[in-house]
Amino acid sequence: MEYPPPLTRLIDELRRLPGIGPKSAQRIAFHLLRKTKQETTALADAVDRLLDEIRLCSICNAFTDLEVCAMCADPARNDAVICVIEEPHNLSVVERTRDFRGRYHVLHGTLSPLQGIGPDELKIHGLLQRIGAGGVEEVILATSPTVEGEATAVYLARILKPLGVRATRIAMGIPVGSDLEWADEVTMSKALEGRREY
Amino acid sequence: MEYPPPLTRLIDELRRLPGIGPKSAQRIAFHLLRKTKQETTALADAVDRLLDEIRLCSICNAFTDLEVCAMCADPARNDAVICVIEEPHNLSVVERTRDFRGRYHVLHGTLSPLQGIGPDELKIHGLLQRIGAGGVEEVILATSPTVEGEATAVYLARILKPLGVRATRIAMGIPVGSDLEWADEVTMSKALEGRREY
Repeated sequence: MEYPPPLTRLIDELRRLPGIGPKSAQRIAFHLLRKTKQETTALADAVDRLLDEIRLCSICNAFTDLEVCAMCADPARNDAVICVIEEPHNLSVVERTRDFRGRYHVLHGTLSPLQGIGPDELKIHGLLQRIGAGGVEEVILATSPTVEGEATAVYLARILKPLGVRATRIAMGIPVGSDLEWADEVTMSKALEGRREY
Repeated sequence: MEYPPPLTRLIDELRRLPGIGPKSAQRIAFHLLRKTKQETTALADAVDRLLDEIRLCSICNAFTDLEVCAMCADPARNDAVICVIEEPHNLSVVERTRDFRGRYHVLHGTLSPLQGIGPDELKIHGLLQRIGAGGVEEVILATSPTVEGEATAVYLARILKPLGVRATRIAMGIPVGSDLEWADEVTMSKALEGRREY
């Protein structure tokens, strides 16, 4: 069954998006056909203007519409601690805890030699500059506990130590609320290793 | 955690789409931030031009970019049988069977007195005109086997009978490949009622 070209074109574009299969793409397209021109234009505009208006923060590399992001510009946050994350969207995971009031630094990836991603492909240079400017006491390495995330954290810890800053790693262990029964052996091993005195 | 306004705006727009929750909307927005301007413009254009370029076929009410849709314009299809469907996207479900070579008619809804949808709100007038023009022998009522779909089929059958055309209803029964164990009683009852001699 062939849809008219403008409809097919939209369905094809929607299918390129993550998590959108052919069925969802079709459903969204038919949904939009029931909307007003004003509503579809609002969506089209939001998509179209995204890349024009969003850039990387010149300090931490988070996405922002300004030269310096709201997080870096906030005078209430603590300059002495930088939390290093892989991707811009990881920031909300840390922020949601409301436990961290320091600054951030976004690497935009992890070391991955097989994919040709070395230290020069990540935003590490800027991190070293920030530390070089002084005032940073601790860098929390909050990359994911994956092979690449771990390798990146180990690499950063090694180059940070000589600079006189504490490099710390987020704890790995059993997720809160989950049954021990379902923990894999590596996580369980990390949980034992990271055990703390009551 | 607040994202910059252009990003928040896009996430909000995406969340309005069916099947897209806050997490998916965020994921898609961050995905688009990694794309080229050319790629995001292609998506924005496809959305923006949709309503300008798509209209309803003047014969069957399917979505088309022409005055008459490809299905109605196809000289190889059989004018004597019209398959009545609720929504334009139902067409592909029937077409995929490759068993139907007649024409279609899209109602754009079902009778639903509680929602104030009566016969005048559906594209029934055009169907009667097509039948009045002659040559139609059978109308297959392929609305969904829901309360509204059934009511709509019964209503149409009643007004079609006096016009001298056969009004048929698609079969209801146990879906092919499914275990009888899971059939609900109404479906099982329909399956028994619709039983056929070997």
